[in-house]
Amino acid sequence: MHTLTVDLADRTYPIHIGKQLIGNSTLLAERIRGRQVYVVTNETIAPLYLDAVLSSVQGYQVDTTILPDGEQHKSLEVLNRIFDGLLTARHNRTTTLIALGGGVVGDMAGFAAACYQRGVDFIQIPTTLLAMVDSSVGGKTGVNHPLGKNMIGAFHQPRLVLADTDVLHTLPERELAAGIAEVIKYGLIADHKFFEWLEENMDALLQRDEQALAYAIKRSCENKARVVALDEKEGGVRAILNLGHTFGHAIEAAQGYGQWLHGEAVGAGMVMAADLSHRRGSLSAGDLARTTALIERAGLPIKAPADMMPEDFLSLMGVDKKVLDGRLRLVLLQAIGEAVITTDIEDALLQETFAACRGQ
Amino acid sequence: MHTLTVDLADRTYPIHIGKQLIGNSTLLAERIRGRQVYVVTNETIAPLYLDAVLSSVQGYQVDTTILPDGEQHKSLEVLNRIFDGLLTARHNRTTTLIALGGGVVGDMAGFAAACYQRGVDFIQIPTTLLAMVDSSVGGKTGVNHPLGKNMIGAFHQPRLVLADTDVLHTLPERELAAGIAEVIKYGLIADHKFFEWLEENMDALLQRDEQALAYAIKRSCENKARVVALDEKEGGVRAILNLGHTFGHAIEAAQGYGQWLHGEAVGAGMVMAADLSHRRGSLSAGDLARTTALIERAGLPIKAPADMMPEDFLSLMGVDKKVLDGRLRLVLLQAIGEAVITTDIEDALLQETFAACRGQ
Repeated sequence: MHTLTVDLADRTYPIHIGKQLIGNSTLLAERIRGRQVYVVTNETIAPLYLDAVLSSVQGYQVDTTILPDGEQHKSLEVLNRIFDGLLTARHNRTTTLIALGGGVVGDMAGFAAACYQRGVDFIQIPTTLLAMVDSSVGGKTGVNHPLGKNMIGAFHQPRLVLADTDVLHTLPERELAAGIAEVIKYGLIADHKFFEWLEENMDALLQRDEQALAYAIKRSCENKARVVALDEKEGGVRAILNLGHTFGHAIEAAQGYGQWLHGEAVGAGMVMAADLSHRRGSLSAGDLARTTALIERAGLPIKAPADMMPEDFLSLMGVDKKVLDGRLRLVLLQAIGEAVITTDIEDALLQETFAACRGQ
Repeated sequence: MHTLTVDLADRTYPIHIGKQLIGNSTLLAERIRGRQVYVVTNETIAPLYLDAVLSSVQGYQVDTTILPDGEQHKSLEVLNRIFDGLLTARHNRTTTLIALGGGVVGDMAGFAAACYQRGVDFIQIPTTLLAMVDSSVGGKTGVNHPLGKNMIGAFHQPRLVLADTDVLHTLPERELAAGIAEVIKYGLIADHKFFEWLEENMDALLQRDEQALAYAIKRSCENKARVVALDEKEGGVRAILNLGHTFGHAIEAAQGYGQWLHGEAVGAGMVMAADLSHRRGSLSAGDLARTTALIERAGLPIKAPADMMPEDFLSLMGVDKKVLDGRLRLVLLQAIGEAVITTDIEDALLQETFAACRGQ
């Protein structure tokens, strides 16, 4: 088992990565402060892992909400079901919410924990690669609004993350690839060596080699934890974690949430960011080619949907929360391993990227 | 103009109390960081003061949501209208929300600011005495749930509070009394001298004497600011601010939110807390009589609704968030000016209080 620490003063917490962590009652008990536990999961994950979690929290009052599966249910309305459940079962301010599932479950359970009685503890047990390397680290929680993704939310740090690599064996292929998109992102923005490691080990990851997966998760979480510790509430440097996300969110919104997986949209979005970076003269042709090739090898889309026009992108990027004071703000690349945040975007080059990255 | 400072490290903010503060563009401009302003108010307040606020924020992009008036609209559903408005008008992370209204508007606009894009700035312009002395200080924000009051919320500090005493001249009599309930509370929990001042000056307050009101607001805010600075997130001592609130919330919930004003329920609730304190031998008969008399002189109810049975209270108090680990936790009085928090409540004495404090 690898253990990392996310260093955030009085909100510091451990991430354990390894086999057979779901159902480890000792690791849970160390980080549960009260006598009530509330498990939030979804209808896909519940039959697979809910029993294992329940058996590891015996001796507590335990209640559960099982959400419908999918990004389209990440709404204020569905969130309210968690509050209904908590209040009906009379959970008090000392309760601990456990998020058992992918990013959607983690974001919703985390936001419910942030708001319930103005804040209670929560624990993440991510069941997708994407949730392990991204959403379970850093404390971003929230729900979508019909006019924009993650527009309603809070920063709320978990007390513990248990990343059990055993669950990745049941993960559908598309979801594995979607997780790898965020893994590649860490290489692109800040870790050239890790990018090279990924070029060497992409086949092992796709074949779900245990050691390769554990290493990729650890290195990703280390990268993210370092950035989050520098800038918990995204006042500055943390924004580099959004590489590919402004384009990606526009794709998700245009297609309706749940059609493209988040990681798939980020995959195409990172290619768009790399393409624009190259057109602006900052990323070399070689680095653009390597970036595109690695994303493609992971089984991710490298083109935006064919029916998305430039004006669709611009309109949807205009309400993205990465827009600063009405100006478009993007994370771009200087080189593999080196990201830069800029508001100085030439409209003509952006139009060229839309044209070049549109699917057939 | 009096100015106090609520001392909370990087979230420190000023409270200005005085005449002609609504419409003071200089005080607002000092504390607005971006170029967008979003005013949240309600249909009662908008015709009276919205124009004055709008005229003081010229030069910004300004948009507005006018909410229905009343505690019964303090819901997740109505909150969503603020998010709709913010997103439709494309407000970004640098926007500032202004809450223009009473406690309900302040709680909702503050919670919207806490959650919108995971947190934006907000300013309180309270238009009721209760909001000036209570909800605009301390950063508690939130909405109600059918199963409990303020069950969904966040701690989110304003950047500025403008308490304009001119608005109190148009305040309905019941609302003035409701505000005085919280003013009396500060005397009861921590400020014996202020309680004595209130005994001397209750008539002046009820006659809306300018100087008496300004002094009462200042002294109340000072008391609250001191407690909040000690314990921002209610880990301990801040809970004394809940004197009368556990009983009061049960009354509000039983009657349906909006029937009893919050301050009215707190008035009766404080009498119940004082009654129980006396039965437990901690509060003298004299102090109980003075407490009851002052609350009655303010025009507040001193009895619970006649149709509320002890089991109604117990059931509704059981989901109150002041319940710790399933045990009832109450703020009681040792003396006027001295509160104590206890979980050691004798059921028989509580039943006597229910019986003694039930209206005819």
